[in-house]
Amino acid sequence: MNKPRELDVALIDELRALLGERVTASRAVREHHGKDESYFPYAPPDLVAFPESTEEVRAIVNVCRQHRTPMIPFGVGTSLEGHVLAIRGGVCIDLSRMNKVLAVHEHDLDAVVEAGVTRKQLNEHIRHTGLFFPVDPGADATIGGMAATRASGTNAVRYGTMRENVLALTVVLADGRVITTSRRSRKSAAGYELTRLFVGSEGTLGIITELTVRLYAVPEAVSAAVCSFPDMAGAVNTVIQTLQAGIPIARSEALCATTMKAINAYSKTSYREQPTLFLEFHGTRAGVEEQAKLVQEIARENGGLGFEWTAQAEDRNRLWSARHQAYFACLQLRPGSRAVSTDVCVPISRLTECIVETARDIAEASMPIPLFGHVGDGNFHCEILIRPDNEADLAEAKGFNERVVNRALAMEGTCTGEHGIGFGKIASLKKELGEAVGLMAALKRTFDPENLMNPGKVVEFQE
Amino acid sequence: MNKPRELDVALIDELRALLGERVTASRAVREHHGKDESYFPYAPPDLVAFPESTEEVRAIVNVCRQHRTPMIPFGVGTSLEGHVLAIRGGVCIDLSRMNKVLAVHEHDLDAVVEAGVTRKQLNEHIRHTGLFFPVDPGADATIGGMAATRASGTNAVRYGTMRENVLALTVVLADGRVITTSRRSRKSAAGYELTRLFVGSEGTLGIITELTVRLYAVPEAVSAAVCSFPDMAGAVNTVIQTLQAGIPIARSEALCATTMKAINAYSKTSYREQPTLFLEFHGTRAGVEEQAKLVQEIARENGGLGFEWTAQAEDRNRLWSARHQAYFACLQLRPGSRAVSTDVCVPISRLTECIVETARDIAEASMPIPLFGHVGDGNFHCEILIRPDNEADLAEAKGFNERVVNRALAMEGTCTGEHGIGFGKIASLKKELGEAVGLMAALKRTFDPENLMNPGKVVEFQE
Repeated sequence: MNKPRELDVALIDELRALLGERVTASRAVREHHGKDESYFPYAPPDLVAFPESTEEVRAIVNVCRQHRTPMIPFGVGTSLEGHVLAIRGGVCIDLSRMNKVLAVHEHDLDAVVEAGVTRKQLNEHIRHTGLFFPVDPGADATIGGMAATRASGTNAVRYGTMRENVLALTVVLADGRVITTSRRSRKSAAGYELTRLFVGSEGTLGIITELTVRLYAVPEAVSAAVCSFPDMAGAVNTVIQTLQAGIPIARSEALCATTMKAINAYSKTSYREQPTLFLEFHGTRAGVEEQAKLVQEIARENGGLGFEWTAQAEDRNRLWSARHQAYFACLQLRPGSRAVSTDVCVPISRLTECIVETARDIAEASMPIPLFGHVGDGNFHCEILIRPDNEADLAEAKGFNERVVNRALAMEGTCTGEHGIGFGKIASLKKELGEAVGLMAALKRTFDPENLMNPGKVVEFQE
Repeated sequence: MNKPRELDVALIDELRALLGERVTASRAVREHHGKDESYFPYAPPDLVAFPESTEEVRAIVNVCRQHRTPMIPFGVGTSLEGHVLAIRGGVCIDLSRMNKVLAVHEHDLDAVVEAGVTRKQLNEHIRHTGLFFPVDPGADATIGGMAATRASGTNAVRYGTMRENVLALTVVLADGRVITTSRRSRKSAAGYELTRLFVGSEGTLGIITELTVRLYAVPEAVSAAVCSFPDMAGAVNTVIQTLQAGIPIARSEALCATTMKAINAYSKTSYREQPTLFLEFHGTRAGVEEQAKLVQEIARENGGLGFEWTAQAEDRNRLWSARHQAYFACLQLRPGSRAVSTDVCVPISRLTECIVETARDIAEASMPIPLFGHVGDGNFHCEILIRPDNEADLAEAKGFNERVVNRALAMEGTCTGEHGIGFGKIASLKKELGEAVGLMAALKRTFDPENLMNPGKVVEFQE
């Protein structure tokens, strides 16, 4: 285990020479960079640097390496497993000033962006082209951060996650080399797949500074719907049967009654406070109509009550904004609480069973635990609402999370569908993949022999 | 560089004890395993082993490692860059007896197969389920071989390549460990992406023995079309504009006039001998009709002549069978010839330019060079027909290939869209990715420190 190191003065001087005012030890800035959206306690870095180019990132990496100082890349801090916490001190490399869209290739359906560009910024930038970037984790995260954590979200069932939507990366390695992982062509069989190795590596193998991402044509027609069910099983089975029928649904979110109640209170909406599906269809006008009709029928067979259509863009935006705010809405169910969020993902054939069993745990818990998620992917979240600094709550939440993880693993699922490992799930990862984790540790050692790149995340490292 | 080693008697004895008659040094068997579909000269292994389980593969790997003997995994030998050639001798591990479909999860849209299952075998096996496995490189390759070479083919524009369609792998590592790279859930953020690191690693990082692959619902409606154009540019531009319009075309193959002539002669068809598009649409009945109408209009604007529909499954099969036999049909343009196949892939905005410039090289060449490919992906092949053992032909072919590769690289493309590196493109890979190739070599060293797994392929290895 690394020990937190005393920062030496020479390091500060060298970074100052490099970045001037763009490196700081200010307490407020450090604290802002020492937390994410998880429940983990603050772990501020010793310094925060704000590079403006890949070359500056390379220079910072070289300085940090010479001083054997940990480096933690930072986007906007919306991760959920403690990825950005400086648990061993060091320099936080905040990429938010690297926020240029470098190129939009309309004909190729791709864009090249700096790592600090956020997904909303990119979508705003390309609005006039009739294209969009689909990955949507809710938060307005940076594209670099989304790649580093292999983010996904509501659209993944149709458009895939960051795994499918990153074509190429520029990465600064621990030894100061700058590599480009792939060319811009749509497919390639050129050597080992480095792009996807860095996607999801959580800043532990190198620092992503530029990305080429896929864009998609805004569909000719979009239509969304809300449908309530007597129980979660009906909602989930509707989605499963829809997918089996090959209907290319674009979003399919299930929310429990508790979540719907929280949303109504928070977003001033008046949805039925019952298990609910939020759905979206993309396609040609005729295609969307046809899809929607088929799904409506499947829903009815599963006890679906009412099927409200929101064809207007404005209504749709309200719907998805309500969904995206579910996390914050749920926090208000217990004012002042923080959330421990579970993130399991199982084969969809096991999803109903997994959710029904988890609902039993929820019924027995001492705190409110809303449940919602991307059921088309087999991925759902329980938001365990704990009082800060309450040991009993935290212990109960950890026990709950562990049971959910074990349940998912027993069903051939994963401990994390989209939040990542951070330092919160290192033990779960071992339980999940066994021997393969040894290989991951060997990879880490190859890429970062001194364990300076976001140390203490993803895999244990024997120095 | 490794030198070919003398096989020691102990190795043979140990393998014999393990496999009995399922290991052989027969000349005919060795020769069959010492070539693929490429033009490279034979390089037979010293022995061929036929394991029937992951455990047997592990045992073979352990024996070979103890004797420091190269191991080359083998599917059906349809690769195109010399992947399976035993250029340093050693033991060929033929996985064709590992041909069991282990599980079909209809509700989860996936199947678990042994590495020796071929794509047609899998599709036959699941025909009654209404599902299919879409990756289709033409040859009836093994799923393991397709994963190892990151194969794609005609359906990739809609369904992706092996990169997108492998969910998890069981791999025997060089040190004899057996790992599973991922769970069966549809998505995961659990640690480094090992699955995709092995997909495309061409047997150099480990031996794939089992795979979980994605399946898709057979679309409600399928419709195919043939359309001729006055020039390749018209055909290619039609596809580009179709993709830009967001029309989810399922296949889009362009074939030059020479290729059409070869196909007519070989498959007894009577297509116009002009640049031609083969297209396919998948979806609901209304969706397919709508797509087809839109594309027909785009084709007309690009000079498309006639648009023949083949809605019957039988006609469609004839069409795609003609396309898949293009490689063999073209060989007949120069009886007795072998083909050097190019495989560049460029961003589609550069595809027309790349093909038009390449057509000039073709016009100046001394031999027939048909051109065809998966234009929806930006990927096309020139089949340079050389006389075996003719040095001048080979030199001309190599020069041609190099010019095409340089052209693609200058257009932000790749030297290989789907055939892989093998040992034919190691220098091109360096030209393409520079520093990143050093990282690939470091990966190789980490996974296979003694350079025994398919040595001499993908990356150079300094021992």
